[in-house]
Amino acid sequence: MPELRKDPIIGRWVIIATERAKRPTDFQMLRVEQKGGFCPFCPGNEEGTPPEVLAYRPGAARPNGPGWSLRVVPNRFPALMIEGSLNREGDGIYDKMSGIGAHEVIIETADHSKGLASSSEKEVEDVLWAWRDRISDLRRDTRFRYVLIFKNHGEAAGASLEHSHSQLIALPIVPRRVTDEMEGARRHFESKERCIYCDIVRQEKKEHARIVYENEEMLVVAPWAPRRPFETWILPKNHVSNFEDSQKSEFRGLANALRTTLRKLDAALENPPFNFILHTSPLNQRGLAHYHWHVELMPTLTKVAGFESGSGFYINPTPPEEAAAFLRRADGM
Amino acid sequence: MPELRKDPIIGRWVIIATERAKRPTDFQMLRVEQKGGFCPFCPGNEEGTPPEVLAYRPGAARPNGPGWSLRVVPNRFPALMIEGSLNREGDGIYDKMSGIGAHEVIIETADHSKGLASSSEKEVEDVLWAWRDRISDLRRDTRFRYVLIFKNHGEAAGASLEHSHSQLIALPIVPRRVTDEMEGARRHFESKERCIYCDIVRQEKKEHARIVYENEEMLVVAPWAPRRPFETWILPKNHVSNFEDSQKSEFRGLANALRTTLRKLDAALENPPFNFILHTSPLNQRGLAHYHWHVELMPTLTKVAGFESGSGFYINPTPPEEAAAFLRRADGM
Repeated sequence: MPELRKDPIIGRWVIIATERAKRPTDFQMLRVEQKGGFCPFCPGNEEGTPPEVLAYRPGAARPNGPGWSLRVVPNRFPALMIEGSLNREGDGIYDKMSGIGAHEVIIETADHSKGLASSSEKEVEDVLWAWRDRISDLRRDTRFRYVLIFKNHGEAAGASLEHSHSQLIALPIVPRRVTDEMEGARRHFESKERCIYCDIVRQEKKEHARIVYENEEMLVVAPWAPRRPFETWILPKNHVSNFEDSQKSEFRGLANALRTTLRKLDAALENPPFNFILHTSPLNQRGLAHYHWHVELMPTLTKVAGFESGSGFYINPTPPEEAAAFLRRADGM
Repeated sequence: MPELRKDPIIGRWVIIATERAKRPTDFQMLRVEQKGGFCPFCPGNEEGTPPEVLAYRPGAARPNGPGWSLRVVPNRFPALMIEGSLNREGDGIYDKMSGIGAHEVIIETADHSKGLASSSEKEVEDVLWAWRDRISDLRRDTRFRYVLIFKNHGEAAGASLEHSHSQLIALPIVPRRVTDEMEGARRHFESKERCIYCDIVRQEKKEHARIVYENEEMLVVAPWAPRRPFETWILPKNHVSNFEDSQKSEFRGLANALRTTLRKLDAALENPPFNFILHTSPLNQRGLAHYHWHVELMPTLTKVAGFESGSGFYINPTPPEEAAAFLRRADGM
């Protein structure tokens, strides 16, 4: 008998379709492979990108030349413009504002052949520090309300360049999904005076069935009501609402948990395309008792039927308990 | 300068990225083509499906044999089970219920080579009557709260069989997207005592820039804040909250509008894969002043970056005014 399960935060119901249950080997794998060719993100090609806004350079190399280990540059084809004033305008029943924002690319490594999974833990940690540094800098621009950080890996997941990178979009609005989470978490807090994500961490540790991996700082789980097969969340064990306000030990813990999870996915699902998104609090809200930052990761395994994102109603053929058991056993070292 | 636009119903902001604006010819077309092979939906193969729950037979042919023009059968691999009782259960902070529901396939035509766009208006109208008949029948089952009707056309849009069909899922819950719309529409009604969809119809008719097509009963528009290029909505001009309570003239009007829109899409975008979803009121709510049924249609033109459905934040490279102008000119006859 299939099950209908409700996401405890935003209240979305999903079908966990046991009757058409799919094991990892049932998916037609979309293995990410490198094709090569000219790469504007490789050392020596710094002129192929706009001037850098941040770089980590182990030596004393000059800006916008080689010698870096990580580099942050504005997106060459930005979805939003950094310059201009934020005009809000009504048009009858409609609302709009000028497309002000920052759109940046975090080039995670100088080595074209490396991904986050094949980088060292120290290198992954540096990516997290770069996210934090950029959030801290962009926070000073009072036009912005939110910094959305995400990674598309592989063509099927929307990546247009293969050199490992994540992206950042600073926005004058808060994305719909975040406001949904904030509202759901607030309702839970109002009735129970507990953070719902802390409750999730407690219950998952007790039940154990959906745990993929854990270290001292982070818990990696297949969530109770996943939208898609092998959806995976990384949650800090201690309560922090804003990613950028985490402890150094938590960045180290996340680097270890993220790298291990990606290695497990690569081992279990043959180097799949994936997306992950950092979910954190809006810039003007800090130290919230009811919200808890986390990372949501989703490999691209099934064709995304448009009716699912259009209706907000998902059919998931892989129970999270099976996905977690499979990933627990997979090699993440 | 790109624009940030807010969907007036659910409050989702999208970026309309004029700087990377894409004309229809810029998309890599995913043209839907038929491959042939054995088809369980073709006349003569009725044994390849579970026994029919509804069929339109112009002659007096016997059930589950040839002679039909339209046939509704249970999905052979249903996401939900029709038999059993609806058990609700808590599990700590989590909620679940048994996966009770109906999952049916509407085989829209006996002719394997026909789609909705190449069917006659009368044939398309019959599909709408079948949807209505099934909703009316399923409404009597008090376990159900909602009937979700949608069509996936083409492999890239999630269709696993090429013979033209739509699908129906009767659910003991209301999908998240519908509750979002109902809440937004209720807020608008509470402050203005007007239906927001009626307001949209009025404003679009006045501005004209986003109209794709209209007939006496229906208005076809590119919505103000579309998630994806060429997203198109079909709205009844008169207020009706429940699809199944529409007038006969409105079914005829929708058949004409849907067929014309699909023909225009085929002409303009070279037979693209698409999804559409019927948005209508929950079964136990009828005659609502604040909600207004409609159809949302989305061709599959861009790779769906997971970060967009994950964050609820969309970047759309084609302004709806451009999409509408292009479709207005395209041949729909």
